[in-house]
Amino acid sequence: MNQRIKLGMVGGGQGAFIGAVHRIASRIDDRYELVAGAFSSNPEKSLASGKELGISTDRNYKDYLEMASKESERTDKIDAVAIVTPNHMHHPIAMAFIEKGFHIICDKPLAINLKECEELVKATKEKDIIFALTHNYTGYPMIRNAKAMCEQGDLGNIRVIQAEYAQDWLTEDIENKSESGGNKQAAWRTDPAQSGGGGCIGDIGTHAFNLVRFITSLQPQQLSAELTSFVSGRQLDDNAQISIRFNGGAKGSIWSSQVAIGNENHLMIRIYGEKGGLEWCQEDPNYLYFTKFGSPKQKITRGGAGALEAANDVTRIPPGHPEGYLEGFANIYTDVANALSDKLKNNYDATKYCFPTVEDGLEGIRFIERSIASSSSDSSWVNF
Amino acid sequence: MNQRIKLGMVGGGQGAFIGAVHRIASRIDDRYELVAGAFSSNPEKSLASGKELGISTDRNYKDYLEMASKESERTDKIDAVAIVTPNHMHHPIAMAFIEKGFHIICDKPLAINLKECEELVKATKEKDIIFALTHNYTGYPMIRNAKAMCEQGDLGNIRVIQAEYAQDWLTEDIENKSESGGNKQAAWRTDPAQSGGGGCIGDIGTHAFNLVRFITSLQPQQLSAELTSFVSGRQLDDNAQISIRFNGGAKGSIWSSQVAIGNENHLMIRIYGEKGGLEWCQEDPNYLYFTKFGSPKQKITRGGAGALEAANDVTRIPPGHPEGYLEGFANIYTDVANALSDKLKNNYDATKYCFPTVEDGLEGIRFIERSIASSSSDSSWVNF
Amino acid sequence: MNQRIKLGMVGGGQGAFIGAVHRIASRIDDRYELVAGAFSSNPEKSLASGKELGISTDRNYKDYLEMASKESERTDKIDAVAIVTPNHMHHPIAMAFIEKGFHIICDKPLAINLKECEELVKATKEKDIIFALTHNYTGYPMIRNAKAMCEQGDLGNIRVIQAEYAQDWLTEDIENKSESGGNKQAAWRTDPAQSGGGGCIGDIGTHAFNLVRFITSLQPQQLSAELTSFVSGRQLDDNAQISIRFNGGAKGSIWSSQVAIGNENHLMIRIYGEKGGLEWCQEDPNYLYFTKFGSPKQKITRGGAGALEAANDVTRIPPGHPEGYLEGFANIYTDVANALSDKLKNNYDATKYCFPTVEDGLEGIRFIERSIASSSSDSSWVNF
Amino acid sequence: MNQRIKLGMVGGGQGAFIGAVHRIASRIDDRYELVAGAFSSNPEKSLASGKELGISTDRNYKDYLEMASKESERTDKIDAVAIVTPNHMHHPIAMAFIEKGFHIICDKPLAINLKECEELVKATKEKDIIFALTHNYTGYPMIRNAKAMCEQGDLGNIRVIQAEYAQDWLTEDIENKSESGGNKQAAWRTDPAQSGGGGCIGDIGTHAFNLVRFITSLQPQQLSAELTSFVSGRQLDDNAQISIRFNGGAKGSIWSSQVAIGNENHLMIRIYGEKGGLEWCQEDPNYLYFTKFGSPKQKITRGGAGALEAANDVTRIPPGHPEGYLEGFANIYTDVANALSDKLKNNYDATKYCFPTVEDGLEGIRFIERSIASSSSDSSWVNF
Repeated sequence: MNQRIKLGMVGGGQGAFIGAVHRIASRIDDRYELVAGAFSSNPEKSLASGKELGISTDRNYKDYLEMASKESERTDKIDAVAIVTPNHMHHPIAMAFIEKGFHIICDKPLAINLKECEELVKATKEKDIIFALTHNYTGYPMIRNAKAMCEQGDLGNIRVIQAEYAQDWLTEDIENKSESGGNKQAAWRTDPAQSGGGGCIGDIGTHAFNLVRFITSLQPQQLSAELTSFVSGRQLDDNAQISIRFNGGAKGSIWSSQVAIGNENHLMIRIYGEKGGLEWCQEDPNYLYFTKFGSPKQKITRGGAGALEAANDVTRIPPGHPEGYLEGFANIYTDVANALSDKLKNNYDATKYCFPTVEDGLEGIRFIERSIASSSSDSSWVNF
Repeated sequence: MNQRIKLGMVGGGQGAFIGAVHRIASRIDDRYELVAGAFSSNPEKSLASGKELGISTDRNYKDYLEMASKESERTDKIDAVAIVTPNHMHHPIAMAFIEKGFHIICDKPLAINLKECEELVKATKEKDIIFALTHNYTGYPMIRNAKAMCEQGDLGNIRVIQAEYAQDWLTEDIENKSESGGNKQAAWRTDPAQSGGGGCIGDIGTHAFNLVRFITSLQPQQLSAELTSFVSGRQLDDNAQISIRFNGGAKGSIWSSQVAIGNENHLMIRIYGEKGGLEWCQEDPNYLYFTKFGSPKQKITRGGAGALEAANDVTRIPPGHPEGYLEGFANIYTDVANALSDKLKNNYDATKYCFPTVEDGLEGIRFIERSIASSSSDSSWVNF
Repeated sequence: MNQRIKLGMVGGGQGAFIGAVHRIASRIDDRYELVAGAFSSNPEKSLASGKELGISTDRNYKDYLEMASKESERTDKIDAVAIVTPNHMHHPIAMAFIEKGFHIICDKPLAINLKECEELVKATKEKDIIFALTHNYTGYPMIRNAKAMCEQGDLGNIRVIQAEYAQDWLTEDIENKSESGGNKQAAWRTDPAQSGGGGCIGDIGTHAFNLVRFITSLQPQQLSAELTSFVSGRQLDDNAQISIRFNGGAKGSIWSSQVAIGNENHLMIRIYGEKGGLEWCQEDPNYLYFTKFGSPKQKITRGGAGALEAANDVTRIPPGHPEGYLEGFANIYTDVANALSDKLKNNYDATKYCFPTVEDGLEGIRFIERSIASSSSDSSWVNF
Repeated sequence: MNQRIKLGMVGGGQGAFIGAVHRIASRIDDRYELVAGAFSSNPEKSLASGKELGISTDRNYKDYLEMASKESERTDKIDAVAIVTPNHMHHPIAMAFIEKGFHIICDKPLAINLKECEELVKATKEKDIIFALTHNYTGYPMIRNAKAMCEQGDLGNIRVIQAEYAQDWLTEDIENKSESGGNKQAAWRTDPAQSGGGGCIGDIGTHAFNLVRFITSLQPQQLSAELTSFVSGRQLDDNAQISIRFNGGAKGSIWSSQVAIGNENHLMIRIYGEKGGLEWCQEDPNYLYFTKFGSPKQKITRGGAGALEAANDVTRIPPGHPEGYLEGFANIYTDVANALSDKLKNNYDATKYCFPTVEDGLEGIRFIERSIASSSSDSSWVNF
């Protein structure tokens, strides 16, 4: 039997969204056991949440500092902590746990500025920490397939990349709508103090950017950005149009919006090279469309004919049965479990795993900061 | 915290498919703990499988009879058993556990003939057993939505039902292909001794039939069937075309095939009434298309605008993030956990749950048997 | 320059639909000149319609008998006549023109019963007449492609055929709705005196049947039908479910409905053989999906990679630009122009053309009559 | 009967593409008669082409100057001339015919630089000429519908516009491929002398730009462009990414590419306002997707429920039957026929017609020139 990882969690209490997703993802392959937590910045809510989740009283902490400290003194201490709070807390929490030698699973984006990111990268290295950042879309089987196809040269040299991530839930000023005292999810995402300088580029644009990087491995060289806040009074961007020049000459475009009515979670990646083209859309994630120049378009399906080993490795069920968001998340979690398990056995080999790390997080924040820099200098091209 | 159900499992050992799906489904909402099992008809394989799954030695049984007997004597006995074996074993295993008073979660179809089904229905009643049959597609949010729309009259009186479930994996004679000694999944599904009289109508046609019944609640009156075995030497049908006359005058058609090349798991349900029409396709399960007569077609999305409470109740994540097969399965499991939990607290109220039961299973077998009867009498209409 | 055919028309006057479609189709490739007509059974309306269409006074006839007679006496007489009236007039009009030696282009279905059809077949042969029946969907490039793929064995022996043609415009009793004195298009289609015995199977089911025959060349052996009139008071079927046994063992299903809300003109053909599967949908007619067993699904596009010569021959514009209904119609017309032109030069060679003829029309009526026979004997199988 | 316009044509001889499309479009509604032409810059080819098209000898000219001169002296002179040559000839030909007082139908783009455009605008005004530019996509019914929806406020103030037009046929260097002496269509499109300064932005990007303008009526204020030539040795852009700032604050993006493998003619327009969103794709032109904020997405179909009068006015056939490229073209031609016909009767009223004019053409060239200016100054924002 594979070892089950002892997991703690910070954030994700009552009323939160992404914490529950992390917990489900951790259970799907039965590789984790949630044993400790500090589930809210509000101590009472934190304890109530832990109780509801069946955490034993002695490991249900009122805040993350107490948790880091007390867990580090236990013999049955947690192996890793999942950080699922608003963005501005990622850095202090992660630093506290890294300090005590705990491995980290952190929701994206990594932090709210480059300086925090660099500190995290540095601390992670010094303490020899496994740091996984849950850019969950990299866990989708057909994304793995796309990456493998790029690597084996099915596209030839890449020329054009079109990435887009559009939603519509911030079309109106719901962060301030009086009826509910403001939508909680919207409120922290549109507050620079909690989210950092990026609005929709931080919340969802980084996912698109991360996928482009993950699939193509191309290095961005310069970018030119136009960030806009359409909703009156909103401090952060709710629409972003970014052009990227990559090393080697490829040109990319990332459009990210949270005011595009009719889009629920439209994350789409299209990559065109000298020999072939790839198209993938998150809302139908089990299909990858590939066109070899001069041949009919092919629909490659998860688990079906033409799917590569890299995709099949993270596939649980037969073709034609939709796998999606939770399973993609679970793929990240399971891969991290493998890494942690190997680490605990002194068997760790970084080349074996495929999950985003603290370096990916740093790059994401760089993407946000450089985008803001370009946008605020009239979309001039800035170095990446 | 919700009570976690102590679950046992029969079948689902190494090399099996559906057992792993049941286990994942049971973990998604953290409402079950797998504590005992007899995972194979081969005792050695059974024990090895249980070990791999982390079952403690004293509850890792070599066969289901030992398991039923020994579990019944424990104070920490299992609350329910999941039966995930080939079809012909459903009846003896279920009877053995019902006998000892255990609740049952059983994969479909219920059994291999009507007589077995009737015995199971009878035994279930006598022993006051909760018997859930995992017609998993009834757990999809948009199927719940479709059912609720029918119930609230959005379609008016139903006229026409077109259901189809097409696959292609039995296009060739893989049950006998020598290279591998025959595909195990194909072998038992095409063997009358293990599957009963129905081939593709038993394996997948019953899913389509069950969904029609679940969504519309219409009662079939007569059917006319044409079953065909296209692959040379195959004893059971691999293609079926069935017409149904429902009480109240609606007409239905069910096409089921495992030789339709290009179909992975194409389960589609279309329902047309006097006032509106509904269309749903399992391969894109988060969308339900509704047309009110005289208005543009609407795309209702899981969790999105227009989705009803019945769908939202079984939705974990926001619209635009695909939920699918595993989550549908989990919805059944979680609902059963609620029922079991209520039962254990003497709080059981059958009207509160929405999972298929032993009666649905009986009806499914009746569907198969009546289809065979019609097909073997030149597709004459037979009473249901 | 290709010869332009001198065309006459019967029917298609003010308020009619299909006549205008025929006229547009005849103009697209500039192979016809409309020079004469009797455009309505109402003489005044006939003359007014002809005037509007720019027909010279001496060839604008008050009825078809006058037209047949007078045209036959001219030296610049028409080469062919297009008959675009309600079904019940096809036979007498065609007979009158055949009698005078004119070639015929006739809308489908050929006539309202088998006896009429047989007379037309006989007369056509005796007078050496070119008789084209406008089963327009056979003119779509990707239908030609599908036929060519079947012929060259891409599917292997055909096993399963699923054809369906669903509309919703007869959901309500619009033929009798008082506000407008009844919808004219609906009125004659639901009137046995004008349409013959078939309602929706005559109006649209025959198109589906004809396409199956055109693409596969399979010969139907027996059929079992269930025809229903859902709208209260309607005399002809508005929904039909028909099973077909073909020579050679293939099994087919044709569903045809005019009460399926949400379907505008959903004509879909799916064909599955031992080696491959084909799927085509009229509402997206420029795409043909082909799956070779064991390979990813391919999207073959009109004019694109993988399209065969048979399709490219009837393609006017590059891939990615939608061609559709009018162009399909025009393909039939142009092919008929080629045949007529060859005939006028004593160069006629029946193997060179690809348009439906009077024999196809006879077969279509047989399909309707046998369907009615089966349905009225409790869906028993009847020989074709 | 509507008056038939006497049409002449320059260009469009043997081997050409768009000329044949213009001729078909002119015939669809029977509003034109092609009576004269100079079909090629090669006099022999010109005469041979005219003969093939059935042009009488005395009006089959060896070049456009002879044609302009001789036609102007006839009493039965042409009413208008269609110019369907490569781009660089649009200006001299149009000027020659305007000079003689002929109305013009000209393929896009209008000319190869702004100066030429301004001369054409000026001459057109001075001579009171009707000048139609065949931006054919504006003729699609659902584009008319989209425009009408914007005008009636269904979207509210527009915020975000995403337009894209991607093809793949210039993925390789086919303009120079030796086997065929170079693809003729590719050769002039990639030659600055024949096409002007814009490559793919001139050939297809202007279509996207024109549609955005047509639908939204928003005025561009500034643009920032990144044009790239990916194919080695190509002098003009084959990929373009352009950001636009519109008056009133809307932000737009236009991506245009002819090296995006797997795209045949992917022209897509998405428009998001404060109250609703619209999505349209040219490859499925009969559908327009509209989402009112907070409601399910609606599929509005050509001729179906929800389609507006502006769309129905240019619709020939019922919903569910695909209309496309040729019909869109024909809509432009027919509208021009109405204008010409009114003009000839001194009845002209510019507010009644809906076809692109010389001013639209000028704006298109401005789009190209400003894009080139921005791209060559490191994508700096330039005024429009």
